[in-house]
Amino acid sequence: MADKDRSPVTVIGLGLMGHALAAAFLKGGHPTTVWNRSAGKVDELVAQGALRAATPAEAVTAAELIVVCVSDNDVLHAVLDPVTDRLAGRVVANLTSGSSDQARANADWARRAGFDYLDGAIMTVPAGVGAEDSVFFYAGPERAYARHAQTLRLLGGGTTHLGEDHGLAPLYDVALLGMMWGTLNSFLHGAALLETADVKASEFLPWAVKWVDAVKLFATDYAGQIDAGDGAYPARDATLEVHFGALAHLLHESRSQGVDAELPRFVHTLMERAIARGLGGHSYAAMTELFRGPEHSSPKQP
Amino acid sequence: MADKDRSPVTVIGLGLMGHALAAAFLKGGHPTTVWNRSAGKVDELVAQGALRAATPAEAVTAAELIVVCVSDNDVLHAVLDPVTDRLAGRVVANLTSGSSDQARANADWARRAGFDYLDGAIMTVPAGVGAEDSVFFYAGPERAYARHAQTLRLLGGGTTHLGEDHGLAPLYDVALLGMMWGTLNSFLHGAALLETADVKASEFLPWAVKWVDAVKLFATDYAGQIDAGDGAYPARDATLEVHFGALAHLLHESRSQGVDAELPRFVHTLMERAIARGLGGHSYAAMTELFRGPEHSSPKQP
Repeated sequence: MADKDRSPVTVIGLGLMGHALAAAFLKGGHPTTVWNRSAGKVDELVAQGALRAATPAEAVTAAELIVVCVSDNDVLHAVLDPVTDRLAGRVVANLTSGSSDQARANADWARRAGFDYLDGAIMTVPAGVGAEDSVFFYAGPERAYARHAQTLRLLGGGTTHLGEDHGLAPLYDVALLGMMWGTLNSFLHGAALLETADVKASEFLPWAVKWVDAVKLFATDYAGQIDAGDGAYPARDATLEVHFGALAHLLHESRSQGVDAELPRFVHTLMERAIARGLGGHSYAAMTELFRGPEHSSPKQP
Repeated sequence: MADKDRSPVTVIGLGLMGHALAAAFLKGGHPTTVWNRSAGKVDELVAQGALRAATPAEAVTAAELIVVCVSDNDVLHAVLDPVTDRLAGRVVANLTSGSSDQARANADWARRAGFDYLDGAIMTVPAGVGAEDSVFFYAGPERAYARHAQTLRLLGGGTTHLGEDHGLAPLYDVALLGMMWGTLNSFLHGAALLETADVKASEFLPWAVKWVDAVKLFATDYAGQIDAGDGAYPARDATLEVHFGALAHLLHESRSQGVDAELPRFVHTLMERAIARGLGGHSYAAMTELFRGPEHSSPKQP
């Protein structure tokens, strides 16, 4: 399967995700060397044409591009620290889940050891690896990314370099996951509420989808208000006080219809805190002030 | 402005929203009678061709279709209870914010008094009244809705009859508002988190928008799992346990980067409760079991 025109790639870590990554490189015609702590997971890939590395040292010297996808940052260091001197001049693209602090510390390690480090985040499931619309984020040296972008794009058509700050990949990752949970929780809560009136989730779904498209427009307006940086947050649609009034209806319905009211109750405490900080006359975008944490100064009174 | 072919309409309540409703009927060529508790707000509409009613009795007898948009259900009854006997044979379309219990109680009142009652919800702001994509929900007798659908559609092109159960309009209303808050809170929290790495909200926005489109696909899968009703919630993408593991990263980033961690901490308690109920091996759709409240039975073990 390997094509001599394609650069060799090494994949370290062959869980469900690492397996899918290696398979995508193989499918793309790259000589692909694989290594995993337990040997068992390697066989299927070798049968597909992958090269088996006997040790991490053998794995990292087999390619200029080393893709790592292990269970956490400690495992990454347990595997790579002993072979740090062999990494010089290579590119490590780390797709292991980790924090922005870990990503930045790894970047320091790479600078000291003379290799290029890209910190990555995978915004899809194993079955989505290789798809045109799957997103992979990378952060770190633009030059190192550019050299291997074509190869990395085999993992997902939406592969993107976010910037030089290595912390960007984990930060975008968790910020987007947070949106997933926020959107899904409120969808599933709404579905539970409508179920009390014998509405099926699939009946609610098209309205939820249509409404989320409207919310994207609100978010677009709010992003501009946040970036203006003047603390004005003009309430062109509705003030936070108006939202707070409407929220009382959701809270009341949840309680009176017997569904779990913790979610609206929590949103109630959030808005209450924002209003207590004097944000009630602003647009909903002013909630950003609350989320920034306590150390930030208060915005202008509207 | 009034067109003799168009049926007369009465609008009661002329706050920002009621004013916009009356203006849209006038623009559509309907003889429009208006009444408000304070006379001052009426003048501008009269200048545009509206007919001024001196009393609620005069207002409700001026048209077969009476649209009400007042501050709450108590005000609605304060205005209409004294003239209940004049409502017989007419249609009251109530766009006042209220609960599903109030909507159903109002329906009983209408049945006893011999008029048709539609309970409505406005899914737009005053500036959106009359727009092609603005959604107005109505619930109540299909026949009464059908008779006035063309007139009511002047208020928004997305005007929809949800069903005969009057509680549906307030329930859809708050379920969708809940989705708005859930989506916006997590977007604004993510923006605050990315701001610590000097990312602008408008840089985060296109990724957030693209990601929310992916989340709509997850929701589509989950709606099917909920409606299957077998408590299986197959984790084709990721189990709740896997989500819980990823959430730890968001919580950690929020704390370590100094942004407010209450939102991810709350989501953490939600997932923790769901896992404690034995839902950890299911897909995220199983959170519905939690939102349904405590009285429901537990689903199958995966």
